[in-house]
Amino acid sequence: MELFEALAQRYSYRGGYRRQPASRTDLRKILEAGIRAPSGCNAQTTTFVAVDDPEMIAKIAVIVDRPTVREAAALIVCVMETRAVYHDMSFGVEDCAVAAENVWLALTALGYASVWLDGALRLEGRAEKIGALLGVPPGSTARILMPIGVPAEPGVPRDRLPFEQRAFFNHWGSAAGGSGKD
Amino acid sequence: MELFEALAQRYSYRGGYRRQPASRTDLRKILEAGIRAPSGCNAQTTTFVAVDDPEMIAKIAVIVDRPTVREAAALIVCVMETRAVYHDMSFGVEDCAVAAENVWLALTALGYASVWLDGALRLEGRAEKIGALLGVPPGSTARILMPIGVPAEPGVPRDRLPFEQRAFFNHWGSAAGGSGKD
Repeated sequence: MELFEALAQRYSYRGGYRRQPASRTDLRKILEAGIRAPSGCNAQTTTFVAVDDPEMIAKIAVIVDRPTVREAAALIVCVMETRAVYHDMSFGVEDCAVAAENVWLALTALGYASVWLDGALRLEGRAEKIGALLGVPPGSTARILMPIGVPAEPGVPRDRLPFEQRAFFNHWGSAAGGSGKD
Repeated sequence: MELFEALAQRYSYRGGYRRQPASRTDLRKILEAGIRAPSGCNAQTTTFVAVDDPEMIAKIAVIVDRPTVREAAALIVCVMETRAVYHDMSFGVEDCAVAAENVWLALTALGYASVWLDGALRLEGRAEKIGALLGVPPGSTARILMPIGVPAEPGVPRDRLPFEQRAFFNHWGSAAGGSGKD
């Protein structure tokens, strides 16, 4: 799939999935997209656990009880590490987010749909429970959960605010200020 | 450019740029890629300021004194807002990071190179100085600076740790555990 098409077609899917597996070939391609994501100081702080064992998916669906998780062909858990890599700064949150976006674009291009589950993992100890199930070591956190499957009823990308409210040229509030070249 | 090719070709460029402008058509396409990026609860907390006025670029290059900034055809400043959107959580950091990755992939596909400047902005009040120059309103922060230009001497993507150290199946440390389907 062409890049700009993938950027445009990626969307949050919260419905059920068809009973159609995600092949290890596809999962590897998706994980490799995540691995290629940039990270602060190339510290590569994000690690991925792909879950395609139906029993493990069922266990995680008890913790995060949603159709997309329950019916997923696979789950990608993006595991975050927040050690300082530049002065006293960690870029672990950013690294993990960017890796998830790469994963999302890759699975979109391969015909799957997903949703980024993150806030829900930070409530009711869900991240810790998933971490314990998957053997995530101390100091790392199961930060983002992305179900993968072929959507039962494909959705559409949500609207965005108009360009003029999200982007400016040369100064905040200036739609066409400065020295535009065409 | 094909998605997986763009993911593979994106890299951090820290050198100088050719004297070749970035057209407003290209900049709009790059900004639209950033706007399409996902955000927690679709709160769209990232705003972009594209700088292609040579005088403004020169002023920013005084604050962030690097060849990629000084010689850039344009700069994209990703401005972050960190208001709570889900329970007491903000996803502003993640939103801004993901938007920057979309920007980076788009500019790669259009033949430009860039680098993600972030940590440096958090030192010596640089983010505040850039924010003041661009008129960024209180409560928002110039978080990520991305120069754009045609590289004088193209570089290559940096290596990644082997797949087996970054990704597991079904359990941490397990390269091929569980129920792989091919």
